[in-house]
Amino acid sequence: MSTEEDLLANYKKAYDNRVGFGSRPALLLIDFCQAYFEPGNALYSEVDDAIASALRVRAAARAAGVPVVLTNVVYHPTGFDGGRFFEKAMPLKNFVKGSPMGAWGPGLVPFDDELVVSKQYPSAFFGTSLASTLTAAGIDSVILTGLTTSGCVRASCVDAMSHGFRTAVVSDACGDRHAGPHEANLFDMNAKYADVVTEAETIAFLETLKA
Amino acid sequence: MSTEEDLLANYKKAYDNRVGFGSRPALLLIDFCQAYFEPGNALYSEVDDAIASALRVRAAARAAGVPVVLTNVVYHPTGFDGGRFFEKAMPLKNFVKGSPMGAWGPGLVPFDDELVVSKQYPSAFFGTSLASTLTAAGIDSVILTGLTTSGCVRASCVDAMSHGFRTAVVSDACGDRHAGPHEANLFDMNAKYADVVTEAETIAFLETLKA
Amino acid sequence: MSTEEDLLANYKKAYDNRVGFGSRPALLLIDFCQAYFEPGNALYSEVDDAIASALRVRAAARAAGVPVVLTNVVYHPTGFDGGRFFEKAMPLKNFVKGSPMGAWGPGLVPFDDELVVSKQYPSAFFGTSLASTLTAAGIDSVILTGLTTSGCVRASCVDAMSHGFRTAVVSDACGDRHAGPHEANLFDMNAKYADVVTEAETIAFLETLKA
Amino acid sequence: MSTEEDLLANYKKAYDNRVGFGSRPALLLIDFCQAYFEPGNALYSEVDDAIASALRVRAAARAAGVPVVLTNVVYHPTGFDGGRFFEKAMPLKNFVKGSPMGAWGPGLVPFDDELVVSKQYPSAFFGTSLASTLTAAGIDSVILTGLTTSGCVRASCVDAMSHGFRTAVVSDACGDRHAGPHEANLFDMNAKYADVVTEAETIAFLETLKA
Repeated sequence: MSTEEDLLANYKKAYDNRVGFGSRPALLLIDFCQAYFEPGNALYSEVDDAIASALRVRAAARAAGVPVVLTNVVYHPTGFDGGRFFEKAMPLKNFVKGSPMGAWGPGLVPFDDELVVSKQYPSAFFGTSLASTLTAAGIDSVILTGLTTSGCVRASCVDAMSHGFRTAVVSDACGDRHAGPHEANLFDMNAKYADVVTEAETIAFLETLKA
Repeated sequence: MSTEEDLLANYKKAYDNRVGFGSRPALLLIDFCQAYFEPGNALYSEVDDAIASALRVRAAARAAGVPVVLTNVVYHPTGFDGGRFFEKAMPLKNFVKGSPMGAWGPGLVPFDDELVVSKQYPSAFFGTSLASTLTAAGIDSVILTGLTTSGCVRASCVDAMSHGFRTAVVSDACGDRHAGPHEANLFDMNAKYADVVTEAETIAFLETLKA
Repeated sequence: MSTEEDLLANYKKAYDNRVGFGSRPALLLIDFCQAYFEPGNALYSEVDDAIASALRVRAAARAAGVPVVLTNVVYHPTGFDGGRFFEKAMPLKNFVKGSPMGAWGPGLVPFDDELVVSKQYPSAFFGTSLASTLTAAGIDSVILTGLTTSGCVRASCVDAMSHGFRTAVVSDACGDRHAGPHEANLFDMNAKYADVVTEAETIAFLETLKA
Repeated sequence: MSTEEDLLANYKKAYDNRVGFGSRPALLLIDFCQAYFEPGNALYSEVDDAIASALRVRAAARAAGVPVVLTNVVYHPTGFDGGRFFEKAMPLKNFVKGSPMGAWGPGLVPFDDELVVSKQYPSAFFGTSLASTLTAAGIDSVILTGLTTSGCVRASCVDAMSHGFRTAVVSDACGDRHAGPHEANLFDMNAKYADVVTEAETIAFLETLKA
């Protein structure tokens, strides 16, 4: 197994490019749902810092007039619309329609002008009309926050970029059940798909958008 | 930073489910292109073992009458159709139309009855008609091999599963530029999206499909 | 302008192929919403016969264990997620979340085991996870009913076929605001994308599926 | 059967909205392939005027720096990647890879800076990365020309609009095998999805974009 140093040197040969924020961003909050905050739940993760960071980024986005989209996961009680994901990933049963585990996490209440996108798959863009919404609104970039880094954030990042949006992932505002996959996925996303940025950088950028 | 042991214990609480192979699989060979085998190229990786394994799996698939799909990456010379991916990931310029770096890797020659799908994004399913092809053919599952584990294999795995195909990833037949992301992505895929399997398991399964 | 006879002779040279029902169908009821049944509404259409036919087909489907999917249209109050469709087609404002015009039409109450898919665009498959649901369930064909023939039924038909499902459109169970577009779209769909069938043919087929 | 006058009065109650051209358009030329121009071919249509019009629109687009995308249809010799469309619509066998019937129609030669998108389904957007290409390039609208009005133009129009692009269809630059479906589909598209415009209007608009 190679060392961390090896890894950085190896990737630097191919992947060391920053693309920057776009000029008309939207902010996404991915799957900040109660299950991740519920002690004893199979999905429980120590992600209080991530949601706190995401809420600060969202306040800055709102102040700058940047559209905010929240995603959650909702299934038919039978899981029929969960397909192969529901079959493989057992904890998804937390998100059948009406489950309290699917409610918004602590401190997160959608504003009336925010869009809630309910999804069935990891990516916020898969099986939803989100890409169309953003394209029609003239959005050119996506700022990603949410849970979990190695799951729905990663999948949403690949798809945001693939659909044509310059993508930034706010490291402080993403969380996961374990530091290993959290860090590994930030590394992958930063290398090939998106710029991984801090909360501070993101808020500083959003402030430049205020008229 | 948590240890490997922590990680396994942590994930076992939520993710320890095997779904098995399906009954009507298709085999995918993702992006086995020359750039990865070319010393000095930014994409060069030590993946001779991966392609050798994939070729053995493909021989078993063909013997069992299982459809084989090969993907490559092809861009307009300007990269116009590469969108945000071409903008971020500099080595993709290896894959502009006509580049010898986009040719098939050593030993890989598509048979006339195999389907070549040219793509512009990480996932074999994104911006291609592959999901439609498989659904129309009554395929219920996908066996994944290819390059790279942390890039196009991971993205194709998430999408194969999302499109409704039970998914298996053949660890021996996938390769990457560094062991870290290779292992980390096999871990993620196995936890939530697919069964990670060995070449031997895969070939044994394919042999059961022979009439 | 050519005559009806010309048209049939012209198309017979190229398009005269029937594909038949599949073996594992799903039934779709597209957009049977109150707005179409509400006198005075811009969307009002004389489609009582269509919903009555669709309800009979659905009863036969249920008796045969065939999955039933109902679609409706739901928008954010601002229409933000309606994109260019909401911009162009003014009557879509009937379908903002909570509007009584978006309620199910007369006699239609979803059963607990039926799937409701809320969409924002004409096609039941666009921006929804419906294709994934059907593929994961091993469905090979789609039987279409609904409103309107020239709008969401046509768009759903093109997409059902494109996603890999053999498609049938039940003429009696589809309706529109005017006979002209209704007939013209049945003609187009039957020529290139689907078999247009009667209610009687459909129910006879569904009865063959009962164990 | 209702009269033409009825139809117009009926639709005027709901659908009489013009959206206008966007500000950053792309021009699409859909499926101007030899089969449609080949006497004796099942797809033969009298569409010389349509391609002539499209070529004039394209010249105006190029002069204005508007990106031009051409689509064609290409299948594996077995039709495996044609799925249910290849099964239903027999003349699609004209478009297996290498067939001279798939060559560009008279007078149409792609320029090096134009993008060719090969597709398998009616819509230029289905199973292709075209929507991503346009979004990444900051395109906000699509101008449609091509063959046939009732087939691939209609399907591409529904999808262009659904993906978030304001859509215009140039009536003079679209053609079909029979006036009936040509007119009926222009009517449907204009009512709900796009503005149907003339060649003259389109060229006048494109001239306003010249710096």
